[in-house]
Amino acid sequence: MGNLNGSCSTPSISRYLLDSLAAAGARHIFGVPGDFNLAFLDEIEAHPDIQWVGNANELNAAYMADGYARVNGFAVVVTTYGVGELSALNGIAGAYAEHVPVLHIAGTPSTDTQRRGLSVHHGTGDGDHEHYLRAYREVTCATASLTEATAAADIDRVLAAILTSKQPGYLALPSDLVRRPVLIPAPGPAAPRLPAGGQPASVEPAGADERAPAQLFAAAAGPLLRGARDVVVLVDALARRHERGPQLDKLIRKGHLTGAVLLGGKGAIDESYERFAGLYIGAHSEPATRLAVENADVVIGMGLAWNDLNSGGFTARIDGAKLIDIQPFGATIGAVGIPGLTMAQALDELSRLVEPPADDEVATAAAGEQHHSEAAADPLETQALLSQDTLWQRIGAFLRPGDILAAGQGTALWGAAAQRLPAGVEVIIQPTWSSIGYTLPAVGGAQLASAPRRRSILVIGDGAAQMTVQELGTLAREGLDPIIVVVNNSGYTVERAIGGRTASYNDIQPWNWQLIPAALGTGATVASAATVAQLDAALERAVADDGRMRFIEVLLDRDDVPAMLARAARALAARSVE
Amino acid sequence: MGNLNGSCSTPSISRYLLDSLAAAGARHIFGVPGDFNLAFLDEIEAHPDIQWVGNANELNAAYMADGYARVNGFAVVVTTYGVGELSALNGIAGAYAEHVPVLHIAGTPSTDTQRRGLSVHHGTGDGDHEHYLRAYREVTCATASLTEATAAADIDRVLAAILTSKQPGYLALPSDLVRRPVLIPAPGPAAPRLPAGGQPASVEPAGADERAPAQLFAAAAGPLLRGARDVVVLVDALARRHERGPQLDKLIRKGHLTGAVLLGGKGAIDESYERFAGLYIGAHSEPATRLAVENADVVIGMGLAWNDLNSGGFTARIDGAKLIDIQPFGATIGAVGIPGLTMAQALDELSRLVEPPADDEVATAAAGEQHHSEAAADPLETQALLSQDTLWQRIGAFLRPGDILAAGQGTALWGAAAQRLPAGVEVIIQPTWSSIGYTLPAVGGAQLASAPRRRSILVIGDGAAQMTVQELGTLAREGLDPIIVVVNNSGYTVERAIGGRTASYNDIQPWNWQLIPAALGTGATVASAATVAQLDAALERAVADDGRMRFIEVLLDRDDVPAMLARAARALAARSVE
Repeated sequence: MGNLNGSCSTPSISRYLLDSLAAAGARHIFGVPGDFNLAFLDEIEAHPDIQWVGNANELNAAYMADGYARVNGFAVVVTTYGVGELSALNGIAGAYAEHVPVLHIAGTPSTDTQRRGLSVHHGTGDGDHEHYLRAYREVTCATASLTEATAAADIDRVLAAILTSKQPGYLALPSDLVRRPVLIPAPGPAAPRLPAGGQPASVEPAGADERAPAQLFAAAAGPLLRGARDVVVLVDALARRHERGPQLDKLIRKGHLTGAVLLGGKGAIDESYERFAGLYIGAHSEPATRLAVENADVVIGMGLAWNDLNSGGFTARIDGAKLIDIQPFGATIGAVGIPGLTMAQALDELSRLVEPPADDEVATAAAGEQHHSEAAADPLETQALLSQDTLWQRIGAFLRPGDILAAGQGTALWGAAAQRLPAGVEVIIQPTWSSIGYTLPAVGGAQLASAPRRRSILVIGDGAAQMTVQELGTLAREGLDPIIVVVNNSGYTVERAIGGRTASYNDIQPWNWQLIPAALGTGATVASAATVAQLDAALERAVADDGRMRFIEVLLDRDDVPAMLARAARALAARSVE
Repeated sequence: MGNLNGSCSTPSISRYLLDSLAAAGARHIFGVPGDFNLAFLDEIEAHPDIQWVGNANELNAAYMADGYARVNGFAVVVTTYGVGELSALNGIAGAYAEHVPVLHIAGTPSTDTQRRGLSVHHGTGDGDHEHYLRAYREVTCATASLTEATAAADIDRVLAAILTSKQPGYLALPSDLVRRPVLIPAPGPAAPRLPAGGQPASVEPAGADERAPAQLFAAAAGPLLRGARDVVVLVDALARRHERGPQLDKLIRKGHLTGAVLLGGKGAIDESYERFAGLYIGAHSEPATRLAVENADVVIGMGLAWNDLNSGGFTARIDGAKLIDIQPFGATIGAVGIPGLTMAQALDELSRLVEPPADDEVATAAAGEQHHSEAAADPLETQALLSQDTLWQRIGAFLRPGDILAAGQGTALWGAAAQRLPAGVEVIIQPTWSSIGYTLPAVGGAQLASAPRRRSILVIGDGAAQMTVQELGTLAREGLDPIIVVVNNSGYTVERAIGGRTASYNDIQPWNWQLIPAALGTGATVASAATVAQLDAALERAVADDGRMRFIEVLLDRDDVPAMLARAARALAARSVE
């Protein structure tokens, strides 16, 4: 039925692909050139709506794309066959675990080379050219190796899967197909196959049949909510990925509900709201938060995905009988499973069911005003040496609504987790995948995606920063201006808290961090802070130096850890040998 | 039959593993700590014969292990579940493609966690804990996830496969098994299961039955060699991996044969021998080399593994009727296949069959004295700006017998490939896998493995060095003293030669290379060279500064490429769009 003959007016496969990516919201593509993707890179450079961002290596490119996708809703990273794509795998696996919609495109040997099983460089030498595609199948929601006959259908299928599931996908693009005309089944390329902005079709207004899950949900949730006094909305990462934050804030405010978050939900809802109860992390929670969540009459779970970390070592205790468990494409209420219900539909129903109580009182807000009171109640001795505590008091006070805050896996994550955030802060962390080094490229991706450009702060440990440091140069090249706080505490302090406290394997090579920004050509301003006063001065200067990268080295004791990490680490250490 | 009950005197699984690694020749283990491997790292630090080398990231650790294994015959790299192991995958895949015996050990969640399908950080969240093991299956010769019951047998099996095939293997070590007693089948741990030095059992003296392949080989090769006037021995990487260099040199000298190499054979035989004919790379060879190989009466191929690069874009032309094709575990002569024949056996037979010709003449040595004559015939204008040509004349003249020479994928590889090397130079390149950035960590691994420590020179492009630069700190921490020559030519010149000559995607962020060694805490001496005289002075000073790292930035024109790369690049560009 379709137009199966290429003609002069037919776009090339790469143009079809790039137009589809632009329609899905990609304004930048990240990656590293390699001889199997050069022809495609020429097409990227020629495309009117997409800019190429060249990274220093492929893992960093995948990390930067992940940060971009978290803000933008979609990102693309391009690598070359074998060496490039396998280097990026950890970054894509992270997007899989954290539910971030990233498309990875590998430039691969020509169709003819693959079909004949020829041995080429970057290959394994056994004539099998699908080793890497199979590795990618383990950590993606959809994959395809494009062919002339099926390119359009495969591009559509993989993109739709990514945008719907919010997980990464993989395309192999053989080099000979780049400029080959695309064979498009009807109705042709002009018809919008993907709604703009990366929204999958499933969030379109539902028809009559599609109302059934919503009705079932309302019927099951209604009795639970009627008469419930303390209702907690407990938010995890999937709520943010499916962009339900504003709808959640509205629901919480309408019903005077209590909000709380798991690690992955940091920043998803407005934490400055008076009834925000803090971070729930099982037995490791602050007592008031734990009470608020575990003693609630009803817990509305938004995309909860439990693991050892966010459950406080599997110590979360939420009674299943009072849980309304809402997932991206289904919900569970007690024994009632409701497949096919979207988060948006569930929230629509909840907003109908929830009413403000007649006799409202504000007193139930467990951790209310925690953020501001902390700073006020504990005036700092500014000449004192910095500690994790005082560092995070200062970072907390520095944050403004709408900032991007990236916190490296390690001590930084746990410092950030304990903050009560201003409204609209985008939090870039990996509480599930937990790959150290990720946040340095990711904060750049997140800032690049923000328009107008949002102020961006990265707090990262020295061991983590060593993993991916070369990407500072890329961030500068793209004209980004994050405030980068490197915590110099002589190694893997997060590991020391778990095991090997004095072991030399947790040491790292001491670097001269003050030279790093200049060595990597960043043009950043550079400061060093050992005391509270020095940090205050550095942050003040950072504000004044807006518009260029700012780099602050903070000197902390090797064994100092945030209180919450100390608790989590004991649980991890116990589990590792059981 | 075996001792299946752990007792006080029974070693732990980790001790059994570490003793086996030490017996296979590992004196160092590379890697990065992570919470799933910390208990194992404690055992490594406690082991009397093994030292831990902490890397800045896991890909670099795998690269450094690869370099170590090329000199040492075996290497081990340890990472943590998910984030660590996937970061290392490109490095292990490189070892697979290049036939380098590296064992990768991932610390994984406890047996109980995996059995129950619990969701943990670094996991994908779907209860399946074997995603990463399956990814590794694609690029390793053997894998196992250890269990209490099968640990000893699996360790033995995976190690034997690695040492026999000279390809990498993978072990997953659940954290709870580290200190569990090993259950060993008879005859017990004291019996040597692996011969020292990493030699597989197959190179032991052959019994009567095992003589059959050798006899068949002699019967087939004898008639071909008798009366042959020009016999060329053409050497590729597998001959080096199976440590057949000395035996090959002896054969070549005994028979007054001509030696030649593919890219992977650089350094495997003595290139200073008068009958060395140079690098064969199909139609891209020097004319004299091409004649010597293609017009020979007999070509003895040693571990030839052809691909697009080493065949000059599939232009190699060697008549199958006159080829004695010797592979690690079999040979082919015309229509006769001889499975089970080792390289050592084949060389033993050849040394019996080959006799020096009665009327020998030296004139057939095609490229004889090329190395020395080049420098003599073409006196350099020392105030001239450096070019790829003059850089490599100088590096060539600088090399001494026994040096380690690492040449980064890119222009450096092709400069090194054209050199006629002094005897016994170990060449660290990746002509098959071709991963840029590999050589910077790898040269450190190679030098660390050499005892007494060999002088080591790395030539690497700026784009490649940016990929893995943080490992300079690790090399310094291990007290290594390579001479590092970074070719600053403003980006991916090797890619420019293939496609996108003026495209911005081949640019990189300009770094201040002079600051890099100090920023990374290396204590290296630093020099910069734009002219021949400056390079001469820098190399002279490097010799004087023996014992510490030396860093030389060489400034070259963005589009200058070695002549052989220009030819190869044209072939690659043509193939990429066909």
